[in-house]
Amino acid sequence: MDYQAFFRQRLTDLKDEGNYRVFIDLQRKRGGFPAAVRTQGSDRDDVTIWCSNDYLGMGQHPKVIAAMHGALDRCGAGAGGTRNISGTTHDHILLEQELADLHQKESALVFTSGYVSNWAALGTLASRIPGCIVFSDSLNHASMIEGIRHSRADKVIWKHNDLQDLEAKLAAADPDRPKLIAFESVYSMDGDIAPIAGICDLADRFGAMTYLDEVHAVGLYGPRGGGIAEREGLMDRLTVIEGTLGKAFGVVGGYIAASEELCDFVRSFASGFIFTTALPPAVAAGAAASIRHLKDNTGERIAHQEIVADVRRRLDDLGIPHVPNPSHIIPVIVGDPVKCKFLSDTLLDEFGIYIQPINYPTVPKGTERLRITPSPVHTPEDVDRLVAALQCLWGRCQLARVPMAAQ
Amino acid sequence: MDYQAFFRQRLTDLKDEGNYRVFIDLQRKRGGFPAAVRTQGSDRDDVTIWCSNDYLGMGQHPKVIAAMHGALDRCGAGAGGTRNISGTTHDHILLEQELADLHQKESALVFTSGYVSNWAALGTLASRIPGCIVFSDSLNHASMIEGIRHSRADKVIWKHNDLQDLEAKLAAADPDRPKLIAFESVYSMDGDIAPIAGICDLADRFGAMTYLDEVHAVGLYGPRGGGIAEREGLMDRLTVIEGTLGKAFGVVGGYIAASEELCDFVRSFASGFIFTTALPPAVAAGAAASIRHLKDNTGERIAHQEIVADVRRRLDDLGIPHVPNPSHIIPVIVGDPVKCKFLSDTLLDEFGIYIQPINYPTVPKGTERLRITPSPVHTPEDVDRLVAALQCLWGRCQLARVPMAAQ
Repeated sequence: MDYQAFFRQRLTDLKDEGNYRVFIDLQRKRGGFPAAVRTQGSDRDDVTIWCSNDYLGMGQHPKVIAAMHGALDRCGAGAGGTRNISGTTHDHILLEQELADLHQKESALVFTSGYVSNWAALGTLASRIPGCIVFSDSLNHASMIEGIRHSRADKVIWKHNDLQDLEAKLAAADPDRPKLIAFESVYSMDGDIAPIAGICDLADRFGAMTYLDEVHAVGLYGPRGGGIAEREGLMDRLTVIEGTLGKAFGVVGGYIAASEELCDFVRSFASGFIFTTALPPAVAAGAAASIRHLKDNTGERIAHQEIVADVRRRLDDLGIPHVPNPSHIIPVIVGDPVKCKFLSDTLLDEFGIYIQPINYPTVPKGTERLRITPSPVHTPEDVDRLVAALQCLWGRCQLARVPMAAQ
Repeated sequence: MDYQAFFRQRLTDLKDEGNYRVFIDLQRKRGGFPAAVRTQGSDRDDVTIWCSNDYLGMGQHPKVIAAMHGALDRCGAGAGGTRNISGTTHDHILLEQELADLHQKESALVFTSGYVSNWAALGTLASRIPGCIVFSDSLNHASMIEGIRHSRADKVIWKHNDLQDLEAKLAAADPDRPKLIAFESVYSMDGDIAPIAGICDLADRFGAMTYLDEVHAVGLYGPRGGGIAEREGLMDRLTVIEGTLGKAFGVVGGYIAASEELCDFVRSFASGFIFTTALPPAVAAGAAASIRHLKDNTGERIAHQEIVADVRRRLDDLGIPHVPNPSHIIPVIVGDPVKCKFLSDTLLDEFGIYIQPINYPTVPKGTERLRITPSPVHTPEDVDRLVAALQCLWGRCQLARVPMAAQ
């Protein structure tokens, strides 16, 4: 077989479909984010990032940067081993305590990424609990899907955020078998939010565990940034809360928070936890500083909600269609991968505005979109420039607007 | 089902078997590594680490630390997104160029960890190439096994490092089907080395791709630290070379180096690459600085080989049995999980020497061991203390010694 020709052909197919991804080469400016420098060949241009998951700008917060500098000087660069073989640093222990406290759970366990935390924790629970059936929301993230798939446990997919469908499917299952309901709070591409209380009610009724992915909510919602479950007073009803250190907390890594036994079980059996080098102590220290700051301060969260509301209002004024949802994510659906990429390219090249086109497989074909994520570090002038650019492009490209009567 | 009781029971089983892992809480001292502070309750003790995978002490190298401080100040803490959605920083691009050059390949692709690079790259290649059969060495690392398993491709396991068995199994397979031979250069727990040239010969004969994991070799072997394949002049014969940034390079992360098309294929289709936050720019910058230093300087590699030879000689003088192998890893087989843990605990508590006991599932039951990894930053006094402590314990515990005649 000509392997190279095979790879080339598949890449050509992607390009023909408009789904080939081109990564933008960026240098964020610490202290100036969302400002960044884009490199393209020998050109370097100033751009404003409007699609980052550093939702609050914590990646440049002085407390986070200082904690990382401090840990680098104190402990060096890497952890030097797996958690079991010399790689558990004191900074990991402190971070896990901070996370357990954030979610008011007995324990927490840190992974190298949010992806790995979902993959490893769901994979381990579903495969190691004999006869376990996983009830998975139909729009769960790839990392959850892969973890469940990897476990080879029986899986039942229920309609996205649909309590009636979940109830029917739980009722149809063998009452004696162990059950795990896996879902997210904020879904990242549509920005809608799960009916967590209703899901917990069903879990109680049918004797199921609950596994909630809060990666797009931790730091952003709840009095101390514990996520949607904290805001709604539901943290104690969830078996596992999974989160990330790489979005609102501004660093990198993932975790679960749960009972001491459950965390110890995953710690003891998850291949993706055991056989991998621990995160650098500086990453752990930076994440802990970020969590602590957001526990004690609501300023970033309030400013975040305000700018999100402002951008939505300005888009409404122009009739630029965006998905209404109760979160901080503003999806502007374009519905065509080529058009979506053209809009993104033009925003970048002509206006210095960077919003990555989101295409398949991240979202279903036909729902390609620009996903706008305003942050408290965007200025009113940044918003003016964004809105003016979209206004100009919507006119030039004759894109559909929301009829005024429908608003 | 009582989930908590189930978890508790499985943890009790582990404890009864002697396989329950207790993580040691360490703070490495930058500039003083292998010295570290161990925290246990309110106690804090000075210890010397003898089991780190920071094989060369690059985790505290001034160039690495300076590069990370610089990138933190320049770009902030996290990357803020997946590689596709605002998370590709200029530091990632430079790191991938550095890695492609290190292995003399057209391209390289960075992952969040070595585990993820194996899991995602093998999983993607084996699942996406129609009809692919994976020929996997029987002692491959968990991350490779999980990647292959995840792909659901047909898998043929060949006897560890056994060319005859590999040949027989390749010959028995359908000649028309695509084939991928997956193996490591240095096996981390026994320290033995694969017959890479012979495997490449077989790959050529049977039209197979080769995938070589060099995580315990990059930085350590070859004129520029390219690994065993570089040392043996074989890099161009391998389809994929996989490595880590978290062991000899002293930071964290993993990668593959291969043809442009293969890297682009994995980049475009691997779930574990696409749907995860990129490594922090400071991590990328630190790793690139480490690689550059080890390309241009052989001092660390030479000193490393010297201290490894010295420790082996000293153990031989005392008759303390260790696995003879051609690498830098010195496994002292104890063969019993409880005894192995007792030795490790006593070394730590009485002598301030930290060598983690290695037990199941990292190694097969009955081969539990102390795995010693000398580094150029261990001093002659550190070696004296290690040898004296082992001498004392071997006597006290009446452990077997190598008969003098057999040496």
